[in-house]
Amino acid sequence: MPEAASAPAVRASIGASEFDRDTAVTRREPGVYDIDLSAGWTIINAVNGGYLLAVLGRALADTLPHSDPFTISAHYLTASQPGPAVVRTETVRTGRTLSTGQASLFQYDEQGREVERIRVLASYGDLGSLPDDVRTTAEPPAIPPMEQCFGPEDGPAPVDGSSAIADRLMLKLDPSTLGWALGKPSGKGEMRAWFGLADGRDHDPLSLLLAVDALPPTAFELGLSGWVPTVELTVHVRCRPAPGPVRVSITTRNLAGGFLEEDAEVWDSNDRLVAQSRQLARVRLG
Amino acid sequence: MPEAASAPAVRASIGASEFDRDTAVTRREPGVYDIDLSAGWTIINAVNGGYLLAVLGRALADTLPHSDPFTISAHYLTASQPGPAVVRTETVRTGRTLSTGQASLFQYDEQGREVERIRVLASYGDLGSLPDDVRTTAEPPAIPPMEQCFGPEDGPAPVDGSSAIADRLMLKLDPSTLGWALGKPSGKGEMRAWFGLADGRDHDPLSLLLAVDALPPTAFELGLSGWVPTVELTVHVRCRPAPGPVRVSITTRNLAGGFLEEDAEVWDSNDRLVAQSRQLARVRLG
Repeated sequence: MPEAASAPAVRASIGASEFDRDTAVTRREPGVYDIDLSAGWTIINAVNGGYLLAVLGRALADTLPHSDPFTISAHYLTASQPGPAVVRTETVRTGRTLSTGQASLFQYDEQGREVERIRVLASYGDLGSLPDDVRTTAEPPAIPPMEQCFGPEDGPAPVDGSSAIADRLMLKLDPSTLGWALGKPSGKGEMRAWFGLADGRDHDPLSLLLAVDALPPTAFELGLSGWVPTVELTVHVRCRPAPGPVRVSITTRNLAGGFLEEDAEVWDSNDRLVAQSRQLARVRLG
Repeated sequence: MPEAASAPAVRASIGASEFDRDTAVTRREPGVYDIDLSAGWTIINAVNGGYLLAVLGRALADTLPHSDPFTISAHYLTASQPGPAVVRTETVRTGRTLSTGQASLFQYDEQGREVERIRVLASYGDLGSLPDDVRTTAEPPAIPPMEQCFGPEDGPAPVDGSSAIADRLMLKLDPSTLGWALGKPSGKGEMRAWFGLADGRDHDPLSLLLAVDALPPTAFELGLSGWVPTVELTVHVRCRPAPGPVRVSITTRNLAGGFLEEDAEVWDSNDRLVAQSRQLARVRLG
């Protein structure tokens, strides 16, 4: 395992990292934010949906009186491209514990007209203010130690190494969910990985929005290939994550009628279940 | 088991039932719908969240070119009351396979001003047009036959019989998830039931929106009591349900920091997983 992939010589800090730079939005006026979507978070030709969700999440954190996305639901409308975009936010309701907002990401067509890419509804709160009771019955995923897992840098092409996003992620896949890369998919809708940022930045609630949508599709282990575009993705952030890489476990139980769900759990280094997500995606049957 | 609870003498049909009557919206103008929220779907003093979601879902089905909610995400803002309400919808995007819309339910304060109760984002399609491949790995819930399950009419108070909604539902709870009613909660975040409408109406995609939020909270089996208000609820409808009652299984894996998720699966009489949902709810620790 190349040392650089999981332990950069100088670790970037939250607020001063590739991820923070590329999700930073510039307030043009109240509720309107400009951003140049980075080509650094593309896979094949698509901008990663988790990266886009983090951009919207950051704009909402600026608009709303609360800073942490407790639950954020995104409907993906049209395919985003690297380049200029504008985020328009609306405060729907503010309360003491939670506030709710809406945000849309727009890009521009050839005539310069705005085209909506994603629309989001979200309820924000303050994770730091929650009581510290933990009665989680779920167990952390059974995933081997990081040094026994594999990333794009470990083989000829276990994960497509041509995509830009691979350079920005520390992604180490559980070998037992890598059958698809060897032409032998397990037939089980499971994908598990250690997940961090390549520059060593620790996780925060915003990077958890990236974590839930950064692994290869579970459809690969179900023997399918091709594109699995997200229709809708909802993320619950349940706890501020402890430092270090997280473990991400993704499960699909219902592939039918050309659609599937992907459920993600994200566990931090303290064995806390810090985020849960579910998405509905379309599949092409291969 | 009172025969009337699960087998009414004359079964109501889809389109001519209590549920259809009480979720019917009247179009005032394009995208604006009036409704008088029925007191018949209240539990304690709250209007059931699944009933409200069905009202919004029906308005969106009228607005959008597609009729079936494939994925619908609701953020609950303020508590609804029986009485007049208005639904305002917006077409966000229309496509060949999917169209996306937004809807809000408003009621009125003492000065007659609109107060937003719920906001919804949803993507609709045509369930009848989906290919018939089924590669579901999930198994139907282990639930005893209906005659071995219990409803409000079977005992003094296994379920609070004072609420109006109980008269409109055919709800038969798995005895193994009824420990809470006997003062012996299992400690497991599970709730399972047979679910139908009391007047015998079969299910359709809209009534599945009700099904996912109609059981007692899993929190009861975790030893908690009190109110568990929904913050956000997302439902994926995956298949048009076959006739007859459905089986609903609800699971909570992460009770922490005063919040919990409830994951619901709904299985029809053909053993098809027809709907999946997840909600984030607040809990009071009892």
